[in-house]
Amino acid sequence: MKGPLHGIVVVDLTHVLAGPYASMSLGDLGARVIKVERPGIGDDTRAFPPFREETSAYFMTINRGKESIALDLKSADDRAIFEKLLARADVLLENYRPGVMDRLGYGWESLHERYPRLIYGAVSGFGRTGPDSLRPAYDMVVQARGGVMSITGEVGGEPVRVGASIGDIVAGIFLCEGIVAALYARERTGEGALVDVAMLDSQFAILEHAIAITNETGVPPGPMGARHPSITPFESFHASDGMFIIAAGNDALYAKLCHAIGRPKLISDPRFLTNQLRCDNHELLKREIERITLGETVGYWVDLLVEAGVPSSPIHTVRQAMSDPQLRARKMHVEVASESGKPFAGAGNPIKMSINPDSSYAPKAPHLDEHRAQILEWLDAG
Amino acid sequence: MKGPLHGIVVVDLTHVLAGPYASMSLGDLGARVIKVERPGIGDDTRAFPPFREETSAYFMTINRGKESIALDLKSADDRAIFEKLLARADVLLENYRPGVMDRLGYGWESLHERYPRLIYGAVSGFGRTGPDSLRPAYDMVVQARGGVMSITGEVGGEPVRVGASIGDIVAGIFLCEGIVAALYARERTGEGALVDVAMLDSQFAILEHAIAITNETGVPPGPMGARHPSITPFESFHASDGMFIIAAGNDALYAKLCHAIGRPKLISDPRFLTNQLRCDNHELLKREIERITLGETVGYWVDLLVEAGVPSSPIHTVRQAMSDPQLRARKMHVEVASESGKPFAGAGNPIKMSINPDSSYAPKAPHLDEHRAQILEWLDAG
Repeated sequence: MKGPLHGIVVVDLTHVLAGPYASMSLGDLGARVIKVERPGIGDDTRAFPPFREETSAYFMTINRGKESIALDLKSADDRAIFEKLLARADVLLENYRPGVMDRLGYGWESLHERYPRLIYGAVSGFGRTGPDSLRPAYDMVVQARGGVMSITGEVGGEPVRVGASIGDIVAGIFLCEGIVAALYARERTGEGALVDVAMLDSQFAILEHAIAITNETGVPPGPMGARHPSITPFESFHASDGMFIIAAGNDALYAKLCHAIGRPKLISDPRFLTNQLRCDNHELLKREIERITLGETVGYWVDLLVEAGVPSSPIHTVRQAMSDPQLRARKMHVEVASESGKPFAGAGNPIKMSINPDSSYAPKAPHLDEHRAQILEWLDAG
Repeated sequence: MKGPLHGIVVVDLTHVLAGPYASMSLGDLGARVIKVERPGIGDDTRAFPPFREETSAYFMTINRGKESIALDLKSADDRAIFEKLLARADVLLENYRPGVMDRLGYGWESLHERYPRLIYGAVSGFGRTGPDSLRPAYDMVVQARGGVMSITGEVGGEPVRVGASIGDIVAGIFLCEGIVAALYARERTGEGALVDVAMLDSQFAILEHAIAITNETGVPPGPMGARHPSITPFESFHASDGMFIIAAGNDALYAKLCHAIGRPKLISDPRFLTNQLRCDNHELLKREIERITLGETVGYWVDLLVEAGVPSSPIHTVRQAMSDPQLRARKMHVEVASESGKPFAGAGNPIKMSINPDSSYAPKAPHLDEHRAQILEWLDAG
């Protein structure tokens, strides 16, 4: 089994996160990814912490399984190699600011003329069009401008950044969807396409409910903490060794919860009789529940509540998530090969397919220019 | 121009968010989406606020452009219709708990035997395999268990939920990528495939940096607020009318920032001379900068800083993001048709393609069972 994108060659000029995340995902579906890096320096993330000796663990996990060739796109010799690569490629990925590829002579229009089957995937902060197209972006910039920060944080508090780099990563996943759709369309038309994904657009695209609320009520929502705004109890609670979620979405679940924690009198307590009363008195109810839950561990309560039919979950640290048995069973924690022997840790492929192999082990990321000889040989043999 | 997935028929059994978000995205790429709903009730989100008169604005925006037929999959007549639909479908989407489709007689194995070209897309809380496969999930449950909540919130504070429903939506996008990859593979093999995406897996898949840090240092990161943990100033600031981001990633940008705000003495201030000193004294530096920025508006400062070459962005409320000129120019704010005349507001398609039409207007979402007659006629004509 070779994966749905087996045989597809991706030539990847991208660096840092959105683009490399996309090419990692295409690689997970079976594509061959040839990473074209700047001579001497390579992808900026080769210099990003955390390091193991002199190697960036961050780079190693996002670039697992890729090949590397270092090319200077301003040198005639390297341009000739790059053009041979384009002639063999199915997909070109780039994340320069709009205009840079045109100045190199590799803009979409000219490449489409020379290589009509080539699919051109571009990911940038603000996209190839619009008044702010040329501005630089960082993950935090698009999280802020797109609105998601304004609905994340403590109730009444200041906006906080989403801890995962969703400004980059969500754009990377949308880029993959577009690239694969272009591959599908090419089977019928024989022609490549341009896919243009903006990090800012991608942040707006995930707001859904907040847009509907704002449009209908005129009032944009603010940060909601870890509590559902209109259901109680549906929030985080402390146990003796950490925090967990109880999501008791209706009166029946609330009653089950009260029985499960040995506090059946809370069911008929006039302060908590209806969801509205529980919302009005949510701080008090939280204290009443935590009086009990602080006495045992997260594991104890989650097992007990799930058994009783009340949705509940630990709030995992990243370390706990890395050893979660369900995520392990799903091969989501992968060991990335390392020359030192001790593997790096990364996330696996979340797209499980009957036609794609899946493994808890991933091949190593490349040294800068590691595959030059093999790639040149392959091009010459072509 | 009809879109890369023109001609593809998606039969969509999903409800609430992850699945409907995926079918919306496939529809945005040109697929025809036939939403199969429970008679009488339909998709649960038809009853989710906010409402306009008796219509859920939330439902209307996520289900724009889809057709609806109400079928009871336990009634013989409706099962016959459903099976005719499957015979014409390219893709079936479902988000039941694992096992439900098998009990209905529509599990992947049996459908694959009867309809070998059908692609079967399943999205669930924990996936089709693993010890917790049958547990119910909510967005907040997978955000908590997958680790993203533990790195989101105020520094030293308790974890908060990401305000956007990334537990559902990220899974929906990964599902789309897998579905389209299966469509591409089918062009070569003639066979459909199973795509199995878990909300929990999808949360773990976006952690990247946090996994590398935890594996290398042994210490999982905690919530980081709106501040970069190791670069200063790279955080949020108050202006007279709201908040904005300054991302001054190095000494040169810090100097540009100090000049731009008219405080050049801060450059050589011994408390702020290096990035390390600025990190050590970040609260003090924030106050020094806000002394100035509080005197003018967000718009004033962002324009001035961007002009000076210092990355900066407003922290938009959702309402502000909805009128952002860049997002408008990119057709990311769409007006969804409504029978009342006044459109609903939703997010557009973030995957901009040279082979796909793009519009600021979207067709309306269906009433329950609205397209029964047309769908039956199409099936009979088939």
